[in-house]
Amino acid sequence: MKTRAAVAFQAGKPLEITEVNLEGPKAGEVMIEIKATGLCHTDEFTRSGDDPEGIFPAILGHEGAGVVVEVGEGVTTVKPGDHVIPLYTPECRECASCLSGKTNLCTAIRSTQGQGLMPDGTSRFSTLDGEMIHHYMGCSTFSNYTVLPEIAVAKIREDAPFDMACYIGCGVTTGVGAVVNTAKVEIGATAVVFGLGGIGLNVIQGLRLAGADMIIGVDLNNDKKPMAEKFGMTHFINPSEIGEDIVPYIVNLTKRRGDLIGGADYSFDATGNTTVMRQALECTHRGWGMSVIIGVAAAGAEISTRPFQLVTGRVWKGTAFGGARGRTDVPKIVDWYMEGKIEIDPMITHRLKLDEINHGFDLMHEGKSIRAIVEY
Amino acid sequence: MKTRAAVAFQAGKPLEITEVNLEGPKAGEVMIEIKATGLCHTDEFTRSGDDPEGIFPAILGHEGAGVVVEVGEGVTTVKPGDHVIPLYTPECRECASCLSGKTNLCTAIRSTQGQGLMPDGTSRFSTLDGEMIHHYMGCSTFSNYTVLPEIAVAKIREDAPFDMACYIGCGVTTGVGAVVNTAKVEIGATAVVFGLGGIGLNVIQGLRLAGADMIIGVDLNNDKKPMAEKFGMTHFINPSEIGEDIVPYIVNLTKRRGDLIGGADYSFDATGNTTVMRQALECTHRGWGMSVIIGVAAAGAEISTRPFQLVTGRVWKGTAFGGARGRTDVPKIVDWYMEGKIEIDPMITHRLKLDEINHGFDLMHEGKSIRAIVEY
Repeated sequence: MKTRAAVAFQAGKPLEITEVNLEGPKAGEVMIEIKATGLCHTDEFTRSGDDPEGIFPAILGHEGAGVVVEVGEGVTTVKPGDHVIPLYTPECRECASCLSGKTNLCTAIRSTQGQGLMPDGTSRFSTLDGEMIHHYMGCSTFSNYTVLPEIAVAKIREDAPFDMACYIGCGVTTGVGAVVNTAKVEIGATAVVFGLGGIGLNVIQGLRLAGADMIIGVDLNNDKKPMAEKFGMTHFINPSEIGEDIVPYIVNLTKRRGDLIGGADYSFDATGNTTVMRQALECTHRGWGMSVIIGVAAAGAEISTRPFQLVTGRVWKGTAFGGARGRTDVPKIVDWYMEGKIEIDPMITHRLKLDEINHGFDLMHEGKSIRAIVEY
Repeated sequence: MKTRAAVAFQAGKPLEITEVNLEGPKAGEVMIEIKATGLCHTDEFTRSGDDPEGIFPAILGHEGAGVVVEVGEGVTTVKPGDHVIPLYTPECRECASCLSGKTNLCTAIRSTQGQGLMPDGTSRFSTLDGEMIHHYMGCSTFSNYTVLPEIAVAKIREDAPFDMACYIGCGVTTGVGAVVNTAKVEIGATAVVFGLGGIGLNVIQGLRLAGADMIIGVDLNNDKKPMAEKFGMTHFINPSEIGEDIVPYIVNLTKRRGDLIGGADYSFDATGNTTVMRQALECTHRGWGMSVIIGVAAAGAEISTRPFQLVTGRVWKGTAFGGARGRTDVPKIVDWYMEGKIEIDPMITHRLKLDEINHGFDLMHEGKSIRAIVEY
């Protein structure tokens, strides 16, 4: 069949909106009609050419929601008509990683997905001239119709609106999940969130959901403050305005009654800046502070600290897709949205048609959008 | 009263064995007759002048065992005649850290201990000329008699021999505790231990106690192999002999049936070398690998890695005193020794008299001793 898609033919070039060929689902695969997709920094990281592992031509997009239209041989867990969220982190429930119970990073289709291919080593997409087009993160939600492995599809409730559910496919789950799955923040905790973009806001509402007492947001842009407060931020710090190093500032701010030393119980980096990642670790509490890296750093950038920071009890970890097991946890986060436990609506700041998708990346660069989505 | 002690008068100089004055215990303090003390690298780190926080003159030594001879006002948890191990990490059970349930790093007397003083800000030691001598790590076990705060004394069973119990005051607890308390290694795990000195051997026997399947030891010195095997090591790697980078070598060695990728479940650095600390992190399994830093790095040295290592599920942490709460956990480790769950005897390679203590540091430098102890 033919479908409309925004194709990244070359690194650094605008996406081209065009018709492409899409083969039907093979065994163990499903075809999905994408109803809405978010534009994420990771798409832009690849489109721009900054991603050293970027492959072209490809159909980008990994944050979508839609409806199953056709299933391949042997598919049993979803059927045509089911509402679903594509998963760039699949959940096969059979590989060593899934069975470990310790990680969400399923390895069943990792190598082909990294090569922009379906599990059988081929692509379902091609140009009308017959040139192969790569899949992207196993999702390619910048195509109106796309094909995914069955294990990379989370079935969600049918009353969840697509224009909100799509954001759960990446940003919401990443931010909320970092708090709930990775850090396992407890009631009464103090926490710091570095970077108040879309991910940071979702970390903040994850902290509110988890019952954190002090939710400190850090950003160089004061304009981020009102929205972050709306999602639960209790204290705001603009590092350029405090007149001292941010680490001792936070340590002092988080000092509690009866404690001789301060420091946050948890910190989250949602900036991708390795200098900030170090500050995020070092502002946590001696003995038990945990710092979680969410942001994607520039290629080759490294984090550093004195080992004494760890020997005295701080823990440095990271999170991918918020530690969520896609088919198990993503439907729950949709429930949380529908039950009013988390908010999404105020974060969807721009709605575009597929033809306008390049404008969405401009809005991202200008810092004007929290999340722009494309509705098909 | 007067007592014999080995005094560090100046950084970099040999210890001087001499008589010193010792005041009796003040309120909340106890006087202990030290029966045996180990010589630890940390003592040598301070003696040599490498420790930027070293204070002189001081009576070093922090790994001892002995008998309570006198208690100060208000002391209720120990009495004269009790067998005890001095604790450089006290356990007050009242500070924010003790009450957190998340750390063993009690902060009750941290600031005075760091200044080489008892909690009231004074020292009990002085030269016969009246010059003040500092305490060291709150213990000063290189003195036949010493005074400690009550909260820094672990009461142990009376049938435990002092010449073995003293090593539980630091090395044994640090190594075994890193496995049991900090990493919480589970049955069937794969683990790598970098550095097969005294701490490394205790990590290895901790792994055996925890039921680890594969216990890989890494050392540049092949002579370390037989002893490490005795304590439970199942595989030995000399990085200079494998002809490739140690990280992929270990990842491949730890690949298990049904797993597409390898990597150790746990790794431990007992070298203090920051390059090794990075290798220890990076050889662990994607998704859940945990690396624990035990070794003390050179002043100013930093650890580094790409944040991607953490984002893909590895956890970097450290341990001090093996995460053991001194008064609660140390007596249990003594029990484990008495019950044959752990071994100590083969690690006590040299027995010295106090007059010979400087020779003990020579043995350490020559790599001839696992643990040299001084018996009073």
